[in-house]
Amino acid sequence: MQDAQQIIDTAHEMADAARQAILPLFRSQSIITENKRPSDFDPVTQADRAAEQAMREVLARRRPQDAILGEEFGHRPGTSGLTWILDPIDGTRAFICGATSWGVLIGLSDGSTIRYGMIDQPYIEERFEGGLGLARLTTRAGQQNLATRPNSDLSRATLLTTFPELGTQQEAAAFRRVADQAQLTRYGLDCYAYALLALGHVDLVIEAGLQSYDIAGPLAVVEAAGGIVTDWAGGPATEGGQVIAAASPELHRAALALLSGQHGGMTA
Amino acid sequence: MQDAQQIIDTAHEMADAARQAILPLFRSQSIITENKRPSDFDPVTQADRAAEQAMREVLARRRPQDAILGEEFGHRPGTSGLTWILDPIDGTRAFICGATSWGVLIGLSDGSTIRYGMIDQPYIEERFEGGLGLARLTTRAGQQNLATRPNSDLSRATLLTTFPELGTQQEAAAFRRVADQAQLTRYGLDCYAYALLALGHVDLVIEAGLQSYDIAGPLAVVEAAGGIVTDWAGGPATEGGQVIAAASPELHRAALALLSGQHGGMTA
Repeated sequence: MQDAQQIIDTAHEMADAARQAILPLFRSQSIITENKRPSDFDPVTQADRAAEQAMREVLARRRPQDAILGEEFGHRPGTSGLTWILDPIDGTRAFICGATSWGVLIGLSDGSTIRYGMIDQPYIEERFEGGLGLARLTTRAGQQNLATRPNSDLSRATLLTTFPELGTQQEAAAFRRVADQAQLTRYGLDCYAYALLALGHVDLVIEAGLQSYDIAGPLAVVEAAGGIVTDWAGGPATEGGQVIAAASPELHRAALALLSGQHGGMTA
Repeated sequence: MQDAQQIIDTAHEMADAARQAILPLFRSQSIITENKRPSDFDPVTQADRAAEQAMREVLARRRPQDAILGEEFGHRPGTSGLTWILDPIDGTRAFICGATSWGVLIGLSDGSTIRYGMIDQPYIEERFEGGLGLARLTTRAGQQNLATRPNSDLSRATLLTTFPELGTQQEAAAFRRVADQAQLTRYGLDCYAYALLALGHVDLVIEAGLQSYDIAGPLAVVEAAGGIVTDWAGGPATEGGQVIAAASPELHRAALALLSGQHGGMTA
């Protein structure tokens, strides 16, 4: 991509702006939460809106030719064929609890694939990015490369998920078939689960009920680190819904077979 | 307590020593995990052992008169009537995933109550402590007081737990009765759940299957911040087992009634 460095610089500037917007409100008593869907607790904070606005201002200045799809303020058309996909705070439930598994998600789509993505954790000051030649974690201590680990054995795998909080009962049952074969299952890690997969410390992330802006950034980070991200049928995950991310092709295949109820692929 | 400041200083020195022992191994590829109970994945890391050893060395030098009860190296008798209760890494499952909800737990018992406690998160650099006149969070940015929030309404409460990972099916069902009445339930936060309760961002923590060293430090932190920590029958929680921590007496009462199956206390 011709302007790769300028895209990467823009993404970092966006994430910096989002951090500035969010951090004064994180763990603040002044956070006002709203309830978008009264039947299904889903708080939106001032920080969510302020962060997306801050990122849109960076794009308006640096890349006005690109389209934007954001969780809070919807779609803005562009002329470049590129779309920035923004989730200003993925994991608002974690955010309002004061936990640190939420993140700022940025993805850049060319209409068919996600070319670049970022998971930024402002409070811990960790920035995971992937695509356009990068697979990198930046912390206060410096930078390191991201790479999924080569585990191919489901019985030795660590699985992360946001279940039982998200998804239907049927989806939870499919998830359970994989969890029953895995060595360790951990819950409630939101977008940080994909960061830990890209970092090589866990092997699988399985979720359902996602939106496109929930997965664009994480997808690019995990794929750049050598992982595989698809929907539960093995197709593109870019639209969200049921998503599986795996550290290796073998684990991806084994987990897909269990999710679909076709256990023939399993030898464990 | 006569030597309160010396006790507090010792605890900080212990936590500093634990940080130094643990951080080089956190997210390191060289972590060697063992399986203490082959039937139930429970990894113990080099870091766990190194951190407890480091804390014991501080105590041997500064307070050799005190007893020690540690997760890794057991009991050492003392002559002062005080016992340090140590969990060098609470949340080893989180630790081996690279997540940050694990912590170093320190509690000081006088034989009947926990007089002082600490939850230290080395990677995020957050130190929660309570007792001997303190209820305090220390971070890179400075210090702030800890205080639970005054919520008394279960239908507006946020509940944290390590279920479904811990506890029996019967315990999980009792937990579910509370979760069904709460506004929001989040999973998998280990000892960090108690820190967030003391910080005033969540309202309830309910767990089962705990050991005494899992709860001594958190208990002192939560109580110093104004919360209530008991077992599910309303008795002392110092021995572990089934534990409930609540931000307010009203929430504690409402949740206890549901845990015991006596729903009369509920008006929601």
